[in-house]
Amino acid sequence: MSVKSAASVRADVVGAGKSTKRQVLIGPDEGPNFALRRFIMEPGGGMPPHTNTVEHEQYILRGRARIGVGDHVVEVSRDDVVFIPAGTPHWYKVLGEAPFEFLCVVPNGPDRIEVLEDSSADPGC
Amino acid sequence: MSVKSAASVRADVVGAGKSTKRQVLIGPDEGPNFALRRFIMEPGGGMPPHTNTVEHEQYILRGRARIGVGDHVVEVSRDDVVFIPAGTPHWYKVLGEAPFEFLCVVPNGPDRIEVLEDSSADPGC
Repeated sequence: MSVKSAASVRADVVGAGKSTKRQVLIGPDEGPNFALRRFIMEPGGGMPPHTNTVEHEQYILRGRARIGVGDHVVEVSRDDVVFIPAGTPHWYKVLGEAPFEFLCVVPNGPDRIEVLEDSSADPGC
Repeated sequence: MSVKSAASVRADVVGAGKSTKRQVLIGPDEGPNFALRRFIMEPGGGMPPHTNTVEHEQYILRGRARIGVGDHVVEVSRDDVVFIPAGTPHWYKVLGEAPFEFLCVVPNGPDRIEVLEDSSADPGC
């Protein structure tokens, strides 16, 4: 078992994003089936359109963003829930002057990211 | 894909708990590998010691509680992260005058709950 404050977990810069960091709160070394991550995007930040080979189950913790998932563009904020199927293009753009933070759960195992408007490749969300 | 407010999702009473409800935010009909649920425990509420046959990855959204996981008893609050391995006894007791709310992710598939101090059996967390 483990109990920790999310703030105590190392935050890594997401290369494919803008002003975006990722924390692995519960990783494959601990959870046998899926990983719980937290993303923090600063004002002005976000991620360009990309696809992943795994699905995302997300929960917005704070802040606001405009996101695109497939053909849909929506504004999300605290306590919104987002499901992004594997292979579906998606992107994020932070709105307002506060950080945008969300949880993103993915299955353990390999993930391939393809950034659709950029050649950089760093697993994002 | 789907985007929804957590508040729009039906909340079901957890029979094995006290003043406890559960929402399935992303269920097996949508997510192929794991389910994202939100638990809401009112002041005075909680759940008795029990085990599940699946692991829990949890994130505290609001409120405070004392929880027991195996031999450990800790107080948790907003932005704390809890990992409960499959088969590990655990319990919850809400502290203070505000609801205690947390996310709990479990793998899809059968789960068997065993309440250790009570004969009722309703899948909890």
